Amino acid sequence: MKPSISRPTFVVREEICRANIRHMADKAKTSGVMFRPHFKTHQSLQVAEWYREEGVTQITVSSAEMAMKFAEAGWDDITIAFPANIRETDAYNGLAGKIKLNLLTDSLEATAALVSKLNTETGIFIEIDTGYGRSGVHYSNEEMIKEIIHTIDHARELSFKGFLTHSGNTYSATNTVQIKDIYYDTIAELQSLKDKYLNTHPDIIISVGDTPSCSIVDDLSDADEIRPGNFVYYDLMQYYLGVCKFEDISVAVACPITGIYPERNEIVIYGGAVHLSKEYLEENGRFYGLVVKYEKDAWSEPVPGTRLISISQEHGIIRTTSSFINEIKHGDLLGILPVHSCLTANLLKENMLII
Amino acid sequence: MKPSISRPTFVVREEICRANIRHMADKAKTSGVMFRPHFKTHQSLQVAEWYREEGVTQITVSSAEMAMKFAEAGWDDITIAFPANIRETDAYNGLAGKIKLNLLTDSLEATAALVSKLNTETGIFIEIDTGYGRSGVHYSNEEMIKEIIHTIDHARELSFKGFLTHSGNTYSATNTVQIKDIYYDTIAELQSLKDKYLNTHPDIIISVGDTPSCSIVDDLSDADEIRPGNFVYYDLMQYYLGVCKFEDISVAVACPITGIYPERNEIVIYGGAVHLSKEYLEENGRFYGLVVKYEKDAWSEPVPGTRLISISQEHGIIRTTSSFINEIKHGDLLGILPVHSCLTANLLKENMLII
Repeated sequence: MKPSISRPTFVVREEICRANIRHMADKAKTSGVMFRPHFKTHQSLQVAEWYREEGVTQITVSSAEMAMKFAEAGWDDITIAFPANIRETDAYNGLAGKIKLNLLTDSLEATAALVSKLNTETGIFIEIDTGYGRSGVHYSNEEMIKEIIHTIDHARELSFKGFLTHSGNTYSATNTVQIKDIYYDTIAELQSLKDKYLNTHPDIIISVGDTPSCSIVDDLSDADEIRPGNFVYYDLMQYYLGVCKFEDISVAVACPITGIYPERNEIVIYGGAVHLSKEYLEENGRFYGLVVKYEKDAWSEPVPGTRLISISQEHGIIRTTSSFINEIKHGDLLGILPVHSCLTANLLKENMLII
Repeated sequence: MKPSISRPTFVVREEICRANIRHMADKAKTSGVMFRPHFKTHQSLQVAEWYREEGVTQITVSSAEMAMKFAEAGWDDITIAFPANIRETDAYNGLAGKIKLNLLTDSLEATAALVSKLNTETGIFIEIDTGYGRSGVHYSNEEMIKEIIHTIDHARELSFKGFLTHSGNTYSATNTVQIKDIYYDTIAELQSLKDKYLNTHPDIIISVGDTPSCSIVDDLSDADEIRPGNFVYYDLMQYYLGVCKFEDISVAVACPITGIYPERNEIVIYGGAVHLSKEYLEENGRFYGLVVKYEKDAWSEPVPGTRLISISQEHGIIRTTSSFINEIKHGDLLGILPVHSCLTANLLKENMLII
C-alpha cells in the first residue's frame, strides 16, 4: 500500500481535541463566564467547527488577517487580542462593517489614532499589564486608564468594553500553585479597575485567559470572559508546567525516518525548524520534542530515553536507545509531540491531517 | 499617503542581494568550481532569476516539494541535498522524468530502496559526515561507502555522482581561523575518498558548501562544486561568526510599532515568532534580532543599545534607550535584522517586498 504520509504532517486526533474543547466549554458554562477561545493556536476552519458544535459563537484572534479569515467563514463576533495596529485601520473598518469587532488599546496615542480613523462601531478593551510586562497599561497607572476611557467615551463610533489581560507570566511558573496565585492576583487587579468604572459603564467586563490558568483553576466565576487557546491541542510546554497530561495532547507531527545511526544511537527525521519551530525545553539538556510511535489512528506514550535533541531547517536529530534503534527502519513514521503547538500548527497549517 | 506596509514584511534590498550573488558566482568562477547555490534560503522565484542572470543553471534544494516548485519555473538541474526519503520515490521519479535530478544517500537500506523504486535516470551522491554529526556516512567508514557504491553501480537507473557534505559545524566556530580549518579538513577527507574511486568512476566530484566556509575561504579550487545558500541574504548569525559585514545583510523584517513603554525603555512591535522564528543569539543576554531605522529604500546601521529581547507568537519586545524612545511614535516601522534569515524567509515567503 502506498504510504499516505510522505512529509512532515501535523496530525490532529479529533477525539482528544473535541474532548479538550468540550471540557473547557463545560468549565466556562459551570463557572458562568463567557467563553471566547483564542483561535491563533489552530487557525483551522475545521477545528473552528468543532468549537461551534460546543456552542461557541465568540472568538479571539491575534491579527486582522486571522479575523478576516474567520469572518469569511461566518464567525461574526471577534476580538483581535493584539494592541491595535494603526496601520491596519482600513482592515478594522472593513471588518467592523461586517461583524462585531473588538480591538485593544494601551495608550493615548493609539486610542487617539483609532478615534480619528475608525468610522464603524467598534468595541475597545483597555489591555492591562498585570505583571507579564509585554503590552498593556500597567494596572497601577490609573491616570492613563482614566484618560483612555475619557477619549473612548468621546468618540461616537467607539464603545468601551472593559479590561483585558493576558497573564503570559503563568508560563514562567514552576508549579501549579504559582499559576493559581498569578490568576487570583490578576483577577483582583482587574476587578478593582472594573469596580471603579462600573457605575458609569455598567456593561464593562474583565477578560482573562491563558491556558495554564484556565486549565488549573476549577472555578473561573470571578472572571467575566475567558480566552484560552492552546488547550485545544496542548503540548509539551503545558505538560511540563503540570497543566495537562500526555493523553490530553491532541497533536503530533508525523515525520519520516531518513537516517539511522546505531553507532551513536541517533535517528535523523525529515522534520526540522520549518515544521516544528525552534521552541525547546530544558531538562537534563535541551530538547525540541518527544517521540511517539505513530500508528494509523493513534500514537503511543513517549518512547523512553528518546528525545529530539537538535533541529536544523529540515532535519531533526533524535537521540534514542539501542533497543529503539533496533525497532525501526528507514521510511517508518515517528510522531513528534511538539514543545509549543501554536507555532508548530502555524508552520504546518497547509499540511494537516485529522484522524 | 496610505502606508504600504501594514504588517510584518520581509524586505529584500535587491542591490545588496544581487551583489552577494555576484560575489559568490565570481569567486566560484575564479576558483574554477561549479556553483550550485542552495535555494532553501530564499525559496523565491524572483531571487532565483537574479541567480540566472549571473549564469547559474544548477541549483540545490532541501525537499522534493521545493524541487518541484523550481522545476516548474524552468530549473532543470537540481540536487535535493537531504537524505533520500523513501516515502517520496514517486515524486523523485516524476522529477527525474523532467529534469536532471541528484539525490543523497548515506545507508545501504535507503540505497536499496532507491534501487528498487526509482525507474528514471537519477544521480546519487553519497553524503559524507566529515564531523558535523547530523547525517552522512562517517568518512572513515570505508566499508560502507564501498558497499553503497557497489549497490549503485549495479542499478541501471542510478549513477554515482560523488561525495557531498555539509559542514554545518562551521556554525559552531568561534573565529574565522576555525572555519578555514574545518573547510580544509573536509576537503582533505572528501579528496581522499574521491582519489580512491577516481579510477573506476572518472566523473565523480566532491561537493561542499556551507556559507561560512565559502565566504571566508578565498580560493575554493580544491572543491569541485560549492552549494552555499545563506550568503544571498546573510544575517546576524553570519555577522557574529565574522562571516559578513552589516552592509552585506540584504534583508530586514519591517514591523509596525504597536506599543511604546518609556517607563521601561521598551517598544512592542507587531512581529513575533511566526514572522522571525525563535532563533536567537547570546551576547550579554539573549536576543532575537537587531533594530534598524526603516526607510523607504534602505535602512540604517543597527540602533545603538537596542535589541529585540523577547518574542511570543505575534509580539516582539525591543529593549532600547530613552533617546531612541523619544525618536519614535506609534505606527512607525522598525526594521529587524534577522538572526537566521533562512527561517525568517520561510515564515514570510507570502509577504515579501523587494526594494
